[in-house]
Amino acid sequence: MEDQRSDLRRVLDAIDDLELHATLEVLRELGKVLRAAHFDVTAVVCGEELIGLEPGDTTARRHAIAFDLGTTTVVATLLDLDTGTPLAVRSMLNRQQPYGADVITRISATMMDEGALGALGERAHETLEELTREVCEEAGVEPREVYEIAVAGNVTMMSLALGIDPEPLSMAPFVVTSHELTGVRAADFGLAVHPRAPAFVFPSLGAYVGGDIIAGMLATGLTRDRRLRLFIDVGTNSEIALGSAERTLATAAPAGPAFEAAQIRCGMRAADGAIEGVRISDGELVLDVIGEVEPVGICGSGLVDCVAELVHAGLLDHSGRFIPDEDAATLAPLLARRLVKIGEERVFVMHWRGDDAAASVYLSQRDVRELQFAKASIATGWAILVAELGVQASDISQVLLAGSFGAYLTPISAIRIGLVPRLPTTRIIAAGNVAGEGAKIALLSLRERAEAESIVNEVEYVELSGRQDFNDLFIDQLAFPG
Amino acid sequence: MEDQRSDLRRVLDAIDDLELHATLEVLRELGKVLRAAHFDVTAVVCGEELIGLEPGDTTARRHAIAFDLGTTTVVATLLDLDTGTPLAVRSMLNRQQPYGADVITRISATMMDEGALGALGERAHETLEELTREVCEEAGVEPREVYEIAVAGNVTMMSLALGIDPEPLSMAPFVVTSHELTGVRAADFGLAVHPRAPAFVFPSLGAYVGGDIIAGMLATGLTRDRRLRLFIDVGTNSEIALGSAERTLATAAPAGPAFEAAQIRCGMRAADGAIEGVRISDGELVLDVIGEVEPVGICGSGLVDCVAELVHAGLLDHSGRFIPDEDAATLAPLLARRLVKIGEERVFVMHWRGDDAAASVYLSQRDVRELQFAKASIATGWAILVAELGVQASDISQVLLAGSFGAYLTPISAIRIGLVPRLPTTRIIAAGNVAGEGAKIALLSLRERAEAESIVNEVEYVELSGRQDFNDLFIDQLAFPG
Repeated sequence: MEDQRSDLRRVLDAIDDLELHATLEVLRELGKVLRAAHFDVTAVVCGEELIGLEPGDTTARRHAIAFDLGTTTVVATLLDLDTGTPLAVRSMLNRQQPYGADVITRISATMMDEGALGALGERAHETLEELTREVCEEAGVEPREVYEIAVAGNVTMMSLALGIDPEPLSMAPFVVTSHELTGVRAADFGLAVHPRAPAFVFPSLGAYVGGDIIAGMLATGLTRDRRLRLFIDVGTNSEIALGSAERTLATAAPAGPAFEAAQIRCGMRAADGAIEGVRISDGELVLDVIGEVEPVGICGSGLVDCVAELVHAGLLDHSGRFIPDEDAATLAPLLARRLVKIGEERVFVMHWRGDDAAASVYLSQRDVRELQFAKASIATGWAILVAELGVQASDISQVLLAGSFGAYLTPISAIRIGLVPRLPTTRIIAAGNVAGEGAKIALLSLRERAEAESIVNEVEYVELSGRQDFNDLFIDQLAFPG
Repeated sequence: MEDQRSDLRRVLDAIDDLELHATLEVLRELGKVLRAAHFDVTAVVCGEELIGLEPGDTTARRHAIAFDLGTTTVVATLLDLDTGTPLAVRSMLNRQQPYGADVITRISATMMDEGALGALGERAHETLEELTREVCEEAGVEPREVYEIAVAGNVTMMSLALGIDPEPLSMAPFVVTSHELTGVRAADFGLAVHPRAPAFVFPSLGAYVGGDIIAGMLATGLTRDRRLRLFIDVGTNSEIALGSAERTLATAAPAGPAFEAAQIRCGMRAADGAIEGVRISDGELVLDVIGEVEPVGICGSGLVDCVAELVHAGLLDHSGRFIPDEDAATLAPLLARRLVKIGEERVFVMHWRGDDAAASVYLSQRDVRELQFAKASIATGWAILVAELGVQASDISQVLLAGSFGAYLTPISAIRIGLVPRLPTTRIIAAGNVAGEGAKIALLSLRERAEAESIVNEVEYVELSGRQDFNDLFIDQLAFPG
């Protein structure tokens, strides 16, 4: 009776830390939990919020999940917050796939069908929820022992998952900092983890430089390193950043789907039967095929390799045209036999299936053009950033190729087709799943989380469309340096 | 395209004020509203939260509702936030009445029946919602033009309305500041006003000195005035505060229900037929009856008046006993005829119905005892505060009687029975519905709202139970000073 403090005040007084706060939901269960546990409880605190009380000492059981919410693939990493170590990692295809392979088709879906926004949101939630179940099961963790999540995704993926209409995206990206947007919870992503687990949502720099890229910059320390580095996330929409602790610029290049091998005649996903690597050895073609089965198509990295090798061998000239048959026969007699026609179009057969080129796995002249446009778009992007920053491409200490595509790309091929600047191959680095890494880092450190938000303020966005110099530079970059 | 700011950022940038934030719900409708209104919108900001966007200029239409959530009566005042003026005021009985007249019986209800907490919450919501509808209708205001509410109530009323189990109240009051408890909305009180309208919940000083008293202290400026003042909210649980800008003490006295005329033989609510005032004029009784109808009972103020007049006339001695019949006949022959017996108990008939005293409206010896205990409890409360503060009762510049009961109490009667210190009657002031006033003030000024929260930290709570001096003082205060 002497102590007229409230239950909430007692709990907050016992935590001599920050200025904490709680919501009504927590207040409703506070009294019951405290008394049932005879005041022997563990306070669950996320940031400055008291999200719950648990009977006994549960401090050793605290977890979080980092999500890389990709357009194609979604990756979940369950972290033990007590030790900072990952306990389980799972990935799966984004269940939004039936609505289109890329962000543009998914946005279109929401514009054509009123119910699509809700349906796409549900698909995202199902994907995240299934991954949550899987990582928890694998690690023997109860979902309600997951107290926080972090989600890194591009602007469209984040909008769809959170029920925000992505249609005005070109005009108004989902750019928010956690100061601006408050109270986002794991439940808003459809997750049945701790009911009040907060969600850290990576802020975006613009409509086309989303939270996944901010997470990537965080993970690679791009804006905190003395070295000048180039960051490229290759995709349908490719994000490019160039800079150092001194100054960093970023832009987005609409590369089209060539790198994902869409709209490539024999293109396919990086799955069993896909040619993922191509070398010319002793004048003949050597293929790396996923699953070591008979090739059935070519994926993005195989496409880049194949073009790079043909440019290097001289079968494709710098303008991107197959050289005349007679020149090919002289230059590379074994390979020249692969250079045939399907109808009016010249193609290079990578893997024969019988005598019929049309039934085989091949690279067409038009495929080469697709790749040329795609790589020129990216190359124009970094060339403009190089110019804007007032540096030379040769000053770049490191090129970081982000994402799964970057992991499979052969550095020498990337140089030969002109996707990246001509630098020593040791400077071209596959950076891996940096978006997922960034999400993990954000869960483990409030300081890193704050850093993610300051990246958005520090990095300068450079808009490519409408620039006077864009077309000139683009045409320059169409050629293959070889 | 050059402007890659998000919709949210654009809106926030246009408000060059505070560091604002918004929730996901707002973000979801932002793009649609902005574009449908061709970017000609009004931002609705409450505190530091952007709670919505509205097409066009709606700045002249903004309202708030101040609630005094009493155990018996609930009062709603609709405020025009543009001008600061009240547009409509309505009051009604709290729909929780069927669960008991006072807080103790309502808490008991939740202890005996599991469903009662939910049911009581619903009753509170219905009451608040009906009042909201009424004040909005009266003023021609759309409920969604109400952007904020403030609620002042005792700890039990607030707990029940917000779904918090009031059972451990004696141990753990609902004491919270808005720094501790965040995100409470009008919707949490069941109100269909603007869906994201925040609710300002007055903090409490302890289990028995609730938000209604803090609101009252705010409205009367008790803690900001140079003068030494005594604040009393008379009720089943009576709250007492004594102090000035220098130092303020508060306590709660369990007075019992006598002042509400419960457990008084002929007691009734202050409704038609209730004797609300009693004077002795020319040796005979003069009654003030509500509704100017035949008296059917006596309400709290009538009870106090009657006892005070009988003490003053000498028919009740200082110990609270009716004087012997023969002494009465000498002292006041007209009144003496009213002094009769019902069974073994002596009673004073206030209004005859035929010859049968038992069928009449009367004051019994036991009723006098009830009132004595009640007033002694309150008087012991302020006497202890006077001693604790090291002052004399005569130093008190003003006695503020809060609440509706205080409004009907005759100052001279309050002095005669010893409910308040013996001071010039001009110093005894009916302060009116100060809880409701406090709620209005809080809606009109963020500074006043902050003041309400600092009152909780400044005022010192004095616990009466368990004090060595309580019983001695209580016995001293039982007597009527006359």
